[in-house]
Amino acid sequence: MNLNAIDSELLKTVADLHRIPSGAFNIRKDGQGVERKSTAHIQVRPKTDKPGIDVIVAPGTKNEAVHIPVLITLSGVTDVVYNTIEIGEGADVTVVAGCGIHNPGSKKSQHDGIHEIIVRKGARMRYVEKHYGEGEGTGERVLNPKTILIMEKNSMVEMELTQIKGVDSTVRDTKAKLAEGASLTIVERLLTHGRQEAVSDMLIELEGEGSNAKVISRSVAKDDSKQIFRPVVVAKAPAKGHVECDSIIMDRGKISSSPAISAEHPDAQLTHEAAIGKIAEEQLVKLETLGLSEKEAEDVILRGFLQ
Amino acid sequence: MNLNAIDSELLKTVADLHRIPSGAFNIRKDGQGVERKSTAHIQVRPKTDKPGIDVIVAPGTKNEAVHIPVLITLSGVTDVVYNTIEIGEGADVTVVAGCGIHNPGSKKSQHDGIHEIIVRKGARMRYVEKHYGEGEGTGERVLNPKTILIMEKNSMVEMELTQIKGVDSTVRDTKAKLAEGASLTIVERLLTHGRQEAVSDMLIELEGEGSNAKVISRSVAKDDSKQIFRPVVVAKAPAKGHVECDSIIMDRGKISSSPAISAEHPDAQLTHEAAIGKIAEEQLVKLETLGLSEKEAEDVILRGFLQ
Repeated sequence: MNLNAIDSELLKTVADLHRIPSGAFNIRKDGQGVERKSTAHIQVRPKTDKPGIDVIVAPGTKNEAVHIPVLITLSGVTDVVYNTIEIGEGADVTVVAGCGIHNPGSKKSQHDGIHEIIVRKGARMRYVEKHYGEGEGTGERVLNPKTILIMEKNSMVEMELTQIKGVDSTVRDTKAKLAEGASLTIVERLLTHGRQEAVSDMLIELEGEGSNAKVISRSVAKDDSKQIFRPVVVAKAPAKGHVECDSIIMDRGKISSSPAISAEHPDAQLTHEAAIGKIAEEQLVKLETLGLSEKEAEDVILRGFLQ
Repeated sequence: MNLNAIDSELLKTVADLHRIPSGAFNIRKDGQGVERKSTAHIQVRPKTDKPGIDVIVAPGTKNEAVHIPVLITLSGVTDVVYNTIEIGEGADVTVVAGCGIHNPGSKKSQHDGIHEIIVRKGARMRYVEKHYGEGEGTGERVLNPKTILIMEKNSMVEMELTQIKGVDSTVRDTKAKLAEGASLTIVERLLTHGRQEAVSDMLIELEGEGSNAKVISRSVAKDDSKQIFRPVVVAKAPAKGHVECDSIIMDRGKISSSPAISAEHPDAQLTHEAAIGKIAEEQLVKLETLGLSEKEAEDVILRGFLQ
């Protein structure tokens, strides 16, 4: 596979990949699969009916990872891709998705990744998805990820969803259904700047007894950027849910946060909390007395906040 | 004025009135004003263009109260009323609204009170509104209050909105706009039982610098009742907002809570928190070991929670 300097940088940023991974992977670039590899326990194969891949993790597979990053390096590309990921019973794996757009021109480049993920009985998955945009051009960089997660009995999922920077517009749509004893943690981190806009919709349905979900969202809106959060947790069984949204606004940034919790079972326990504010003045002053400039102090605080 | 036993009971329950009040008042019964009184500082007069009254509190009026309860004692009544309340500059008064329905028959009885309240510069208002339903009939008891509150500079409002029991269906719609330095506290208490349904929508706009709003909602859903809360606080200025929803579900009760906070100014500070759950088992056990029955223990806890 031929990766140029831009490709390599994007891969490093969105998938922590410094070279072609040793395990299973699929690298998609500018609307086409450029290389893929299956392993003994993880099958990666192209879909035959539409763009995208199937990733099949065999039952009992442990301590393996699969990387499925997407790169866009041209201006004027719209790439829609459908991936199906199945984590077999009792497996314990890491899935690294993510998309980097380097838009060199004046036309919009967009990637819409539609992921359907089934986590079988007792399986565990860590799912990492980073989004990043860059490029000298004026063309918009747009990312609209859609994730549908089905969690079977006693499965466990940790999702880390991060939008680092450079994405002009994003509408993130995440849906999850949890069966008995399933456990889901979603950590979302988002930084917007310039005139960027970000929307995050989430619907988590706690369908099985003893299932639980925790959503933690941390976000920063700088400059004239706008963010909207709408996480919804519905409990249809004796289940627990917690939603937490913390946001920092700077400059003329705007954030709207409306988590909803809905108890449809008397033994459900649901909580949420949210806060929107600017960086605490004391924190800034403290760091500045240590010799940091205002800008440096801000950066330190934001990095800590988004970690 | 002729008040029968039912009227008197309703008045006591919804307006804490044990006799005709000494101050200004308006009593409306079954769709008609039955008696009203103005005082030197508080004018109560019927509207000429539609059902309802104007209440004009003179600037500087202190420590006075005006009672404007509504009674419905017939089956099959639909009473829509428009009240305008103006609290003059620097005044400090209490407004007691509220509606009690005694539905003796099989037809629906409904009261929709549309209140427009203007609180002038530096004025203070305490606003108490209780809703209550009863009656041996099978007819529905419906209350849809709509309140539009305009708060001028440095005004202060405390609203206590309580739905005690017996209201089959309610859609509560509260809107408020706050100018510079205005301060609003809303405490909402709600108990539903049987097959009752309650919806509470709130939109609070913090438009002026230094304005602040606090919304505290406490609710209990028993039996097969359903509740929906949608308080929204928008900050368009350096302002503070806090929303807090605590709910207890019992039996097959369902509650959905989705407070939204939206910061449209970088110096806005907004927070919200919500929790839905059942009565803590330890609390029940503790009271039961003191000799209370389970039912009595529940009542004690609910009373405490709703106070």
